[in-house]
Amino acid sequence: MKYLIVGGVAGGASAAARLRRLDENAEIILFEKGEHISYANCGLPYYIGDVINDRNRLFVQTPISFGNRYDIDVRTLQEVTKINRKKHTIEVQDLKNFKVYEENYDILLLSPGALPIIPDMPGFNGNNIFTLRSVEDCDKIKMKAVDSFSLNSSVTIVGGGFIGLEMAENLRKMNFNVTLIEKSDHILTPTDLPIAATVEQHILDNGVKIMTNTSVVAFDDINDRKKIILDNGTEIISDFVILSIGVRPNSSLAQDAGLEIGNTGGIKVNQYLQTSDEHIFAVGDAIEFPHPITKVPYCNFLAGPANAQARIAAVNMVYPETVKYQGSVSTAIAKIFDLTVACTGLSESTLLHSDIPYETVIVHPAAHATYYPGGSPLSLKLNFSLEDGRIFGAQSVGKQNVDKQIDVISLLLKHNGTIFDLVNSEHSYAPPFGSAKSPVMFAGMVAENIFSHLMNPIHVKTLDQMIDNNEDFFLLDVRELIEYKNGTIKNAVRYSVDELREFLDEIPENKKIVVFCEVGLRGYVASRILMQNGFEKVFNLIGGMRTYRMIGLHNEKP
Amino acid sequence: MKYLIVGGVAGGASAAARLRRLDENAEIILFEKGEHISYANCGLPYYIGDVINDRNRLFVQTPISFGNRYDIDVRTLQEVTKINRKKHTIEVQDLKNFKVYEENYDILLLSPGALPIIPDMPGFNGNNIFTLRSVEDCDKIKMKAVDSFSLNSSVTIVGGGFIGLEMAENLRKMNFNVTLIEKSDHILTPTDLPIAATVEQHILDNGVKIMTNTSVVAFDDINDRKKIILDNGTEIISDFVILSIGVRPNSSLAQDAGLEIGNTGGIKVNQYLQTSDEHIFAVGDAIEFPHPITKVPYCNFLAGPANAQARIAAVNMVYPETVKYQGSVSTAIAKIFDLTVACTGLSESTLLHSDIPYETVIVHPAAHATYYPGGSPLSLKLNFSLEDGRIFGAQSVGKQNVDKQIDVISLLLKHNGTIFDLVNSEHSYAPPFGSAKSPVMFAGMVAENIFSHLMNPIHVKTLDQMIDNNEDFFLLDVRELIEYKNGTIKNAVRYSVDELREFLDEIPENKKIVVFCEVGLRGYVASRILMQNGFEKVFNLIGGMRTYRMIGLHNEKP
Repeated sequence: MKYLIVGGVAGGASAAARLRRLDENAEIILFEKGEHISYANCGLPYYIGDVINDRNRLFVQTPISFGNRYDIDVRTLQEVTKINRKKHTIEVQDLKNFKVYEENYDILLLSPGALPIIPDMPGFNGNNIFTLRSVEDCDKIKMKAVDSFSLNSSVTIVGGGFIGLEMAENLRKMNFNVTLIEKSDHILTPTDLPIAATVEQHILDNGVKIMTNTSVVAFDDINDRKKIILDNGTEIISDFVILSIGVRPNSSLAQDAGLEIGNTGGIKVNQYLQTSDEHIFAVGDAIEFPHPITKVPYCNFLAGPANAQARIAAVNMVYPETVKYQGSVSTAIAKIFDLTVACTGLSESTLLHSDIPYETVIVHPAAHATYYPGGSPLSLKLNFSLEDGRIFGAQSVGKQNVDKQIDVISLLLKHNGTIFDLVNSEHSYAPPFGSAKSPVMFAGMVAENIFSHLMNPIHVKTLDQMIDNNEDFFLLDVRELIEYKNGTIKNAVRYSVDELREFLDEIPENKKIVVFCEVGLRGYVASRILMQNGFEKVFNLIGGMRTYRMIGLHNEKP
Repeated sequence: MKYLIVGGVAGGASAAARLRRLDENAEIILFEKGEHISYANCGLPYYIGDVINDRNRLFVQTPISFGNRYDIDVRTLQEVTKINRKKHTIEVQDLKNFKVYEENYDILLLSPGALPIIPDMPGFNGNNIFTLRSVEDCDKIKMKAVDSFSLNSSVTIVGGGFIGLEMAENLRKMNFNVTLIEKSDHILTPTDLPIAATVEQHILDNGVKIMTNTSVVAFDDINDRKKIILDNGTEIISDFVILSIGVRPNSSLAQDAGLEIGNTGGIKVNQYLQTSDEHIFAVGDAIEFPHPITKVPYCNFLAGPANAQARIAAVNMVYPETVKYQGSVSTAIAKIFDLTVACTGLSESTLLHSDIPYETVIVHPAAHATYYPGGSPLSLKLNFSLEDGRIFGAQSVGKQNVDKQIDVISLLLKHNGTIFDLVNSEHSYAPPFGSAKSPVMFAGMVAENIFSHLMNPIHVKTLDQMIDNNEDFFLLDVRELIEYKNGTIKNAVRYSVDELREFLDEIPENKKIVVFCEVGLRGYVASRILMQNGFEKVFNLIGGMRTYRMIGLHNEKP
C-alpha cells in the first residue's frame, strides 16, 4: 500500500507514525509545506516570551529523526497543490526549486490544519501586523519584538482568545505596553461572563489594557509604526499588531478536489474520519465533526483531538471502518499570568444560540483544604439541564487545581454525564490536594439542590435587572456584620444566617425574597430556613457577592 | 421527627447539617464522645509537623457555631453506650459528670468511626507508644515530640500506610531520626511494587530508614525510651513509637444492639445506608459496603466517601429509600516529601487475592510538555482486564499532576470504564498543564496495544525470573549508545530502534526476543518492526529500564 499524508504537524505526523507501526511494508510519504514537522505549536507564545529559551526545544522531531525511526519519506518545503481523485494522484510543488511533480496514492490523508482569519480592511498589509500560527510566524514576531523594544514600546493585540491572551502575557512580561482589543462583551468567548471577568481583572492588574465591545475598522502606517482605528473612533498607535481573531479550516485543497465541505468551511468526514471520497481521510483543524451534545458539526481547533483523530484515521486507513471517532467536547485551558482558566463543553452563549434550555451554577470553593497552607479559591461554573440533569459544560478559573476539575467534567461530558454523577464522583483527597468535597462535587450538589427544588436560583444578571426596574422585592444579606460593612448590594437588609430564625417576623411574607451571602452556601441554608417557614418566593443568589463583584468589576471597567 | 446522631466528625456532622436543611422542624441531637466535632482529621499529621501552625485551624466548626447555624443540640463529651432498639432509646454517659441518661429517637444515625488496631504483644503499654486518630492523640504526640526532641532523638513508626508515611515526613522534618517498619514486602500496600518502590527510594533519600518484610514482636521500656524488638532479632531503641498498622470499624455499639455485622467487622447496611434495623442508619468508617468491582463488602476508611454517605443517609432518613449509595472504589492520595502518590481501585495483590485475571502496564510520561520549563516525569500504572478492557485500578507517583490522573480514572472506575475510554478521553491541554496526549490516554493506548495484540507485554518480574532460570532468550536494548553505556540489563545486545531495520539479520529467528528501551515506547516501535518482519516471539518490557531500575532499587535496599 502507498499512503500519502498532506501536512506534517500534529495530525499528519501522528498518523504517519501509527501507519508505520500498523504496516511495516507500506510506502509512506509525508508532505509538509513548511520547514518543520511535528513541532510544538502550543509552545510558540512561550518561545516568543523567552519562557522557552531554546528554540530547538520546539521541535519534537526533525524530518530526519522522524524519517529514520519510522522509515518514512518526509518531504518538507513541498506544497501539495492539487488532488486528482480519478487518477489517485496529487500534484506537489517543491518550494526549494519550484518544480512541480505528481505522486500517486492508494490512500491519502489530509491534515493541512487551519489558517488565520485575515480581515479585509483598509491599511491591512504586511507591515507590522503579525499572525501566529507557524514557527515562521513565531520567528518574525520574536525578531520584531526584540528589534522594536524600547522603554515605551507598545503592541496591540486584536482578539481576546486563548492565543491572544497568551501573547498578551508574554509580551507584557517583556515590558511592552500591551492593549487588547476584543469585539465581544468579554474576552475568552468559550467561557461565560463571571469566569472571563475574573481573567479580565487579572490581566488589568498585570498592566494589560483591555477594550471589550470594540472592533478594529482600519489600520494605517505611521512611519515604522501602526495606527489602529477602532469603531468607537479611538486611534491607537503601536509598534506592531498581533492579529489573533481566530482561524479557519485550510480546506481549499479538498474543496478544489470536489470533496464535500460543511457549512463551517471544514472538510466533511464520517465517523471513520473518511471524506466523501473513500480513498481520502482527513483529520485535525481542517475538518468539521458533530459536537457530541449539540450534534451540530463544528471545527475544533485543538491539538488533543487532532492527535486522537490521527491515531484513529491511521487504523481505519489500514483496516477499513474499524474505529469510530466520538467527537470532541472542546476542552481547553490557558495559563494567564498567575491564573489558570479552562473550559469544556458548551458556554451559555452557545446554549442560547443552540436553543437548548439550561440552568447554571457557580461555586467558589477552596482549591484545597483551607487549613492546609498555600491554598487559594477557584471558581467553577457548571451549565446543565434542568430536564434530566445532563451536564452541558463547565468552566473554571483560579490559581490551582483548575485543570483537574475541567478534566473530570470533560470526561463526564463524553459519557453523557449528569450532575448526579458529579455528586457521586470520588476523588483523591488529602489536605494538600483538595477537600473532602471536591469542587466538582460541590458544583454538582448546588445543581442538584436546584434540580430537586430545594433551592430556587437567581442570577446576578436577573437581580441587576430587578434593581434597574425598581421591582418591589426584599433583598436579604445573611452574612456577618463585618462582611456587610465591607460592601453589600444596595437596599439589602442584613440578618446573619445564624440568627435568622429569631428574626423571621421581620421578613415580609408576601414579597419575593432574594437571599445572598458571600459565595452561596449560607444563602442556601438561609433559603431552606425561609422556605420551610412558609415563605413562598425565596431565591438564592447563585455564587453570592463574590460573583456579583466579579461581574460588577467587568461592567465598571473603564 | 426526632433524629439522634452518634459521632460528630465527618459523617455525623455532615448528616446533621443536611437533615436540618431538609427538615427545619425536626429535633436533632448530635452526640460526640470527644471534645470537638467536625475537625480536620486529615490535617493532624501536618499540625504535628507545624505545617499547620495554628491549632484552631483544625476545627472547621465549633459545637456552638455549628449548633447555632443548624439549630442542633450538639452534645460533646457524651458517650453513647447502648441502643435499646425495642424502646427506640439510647443510653448516654455524660463524660463530664459521669451521669447516665436515656434519649429516645425516631431515627438513629451511627457514625462512630474507626479505632486504631492495637497489637496484643509483650511490652505494649501506654508508655511512649502512640496512635493517631483524634485531636487528643495528636496533642499527645505533639507534646511528646516537642518534649523529647534533642540532637539524637529518634522515633520508630510501625506501619507504612498513608498516615505512617505522613507522620514519617513530618517527624523527619522536625529532625527526628525516623525508622519505618513495614511487615509487607513494600510500603503503601494499596499500590503495586514499582509505585511503592519509587516512594521508598524517595523517603530513603530524605533520611528515613525503612525496613520492609519486618514485623514487631515485642516492645520493652528502657528508662524513658522504648525498645522495639523485631522478628529478625534486631532491636531498635527510640524515644517513642507511632503505631499506625491500620484501623478497624468501631462497631461494638451496633453489635451489642444486635445489628448485623459483616465479615470485615463493619456494620452491614443496604444501598440506602440503612442497617438491619430500619430505624437505624450508619455511615463512615464503621460500615462495610460492597466494592463496585469485586462486589465483596469492605471497609473504606476515607473521608470523602464518609461525607458522601452522610449526605445520602440524611435524605433517606427524611424521605425513605430515595437515594442509593454506589459504593467507593477507594481513591487515596498522599504527599510524601516532594512526591505525590495516589491510587484508585484494585491493586495487583487484591486482584490476585480476588481471583480476577488482569494485565498491567506502567508508563512514565512527562507531567507536562517537556519543552515547557519546570516539568518532571510521573509514573502511572494501570491494572485492567484483557477480556473486555475494563479498568480495575490505577496508581501514580510523581512530583506534579498525579492527582489529576487518578481523579480521572477514579471517575471512570465508577462508570465501569475501559481502557478504550482512556484512549478516547479528552483533557485540557496547554504546555504548562500537560501534553497533547495525557498520561491516562498514554496508559490507555499501551493497554489497547496489548489488548489488540499489537504488542506482547513482559514484566520486570518475569524477565528477572527468566534471567535467574538461565532461560535461552535474546535480550534487545533498542536505546542509544549513551543510554546503554549508563547501564543496561545483563547480556543485552544493543541496536538503536532507528537502525534496527538494517540489523534484522543479527536477530535470532527462533528465539524468544525481549525488547526494551528506557520507558517502553521505542521498545514498542521496535517490537512492531520485528513482529512484522516475521519474528514470532517478541515481547516488550513494560515500563522499560526505568521500571526495571525502580524495582531493582527496592530489591537491593539494605
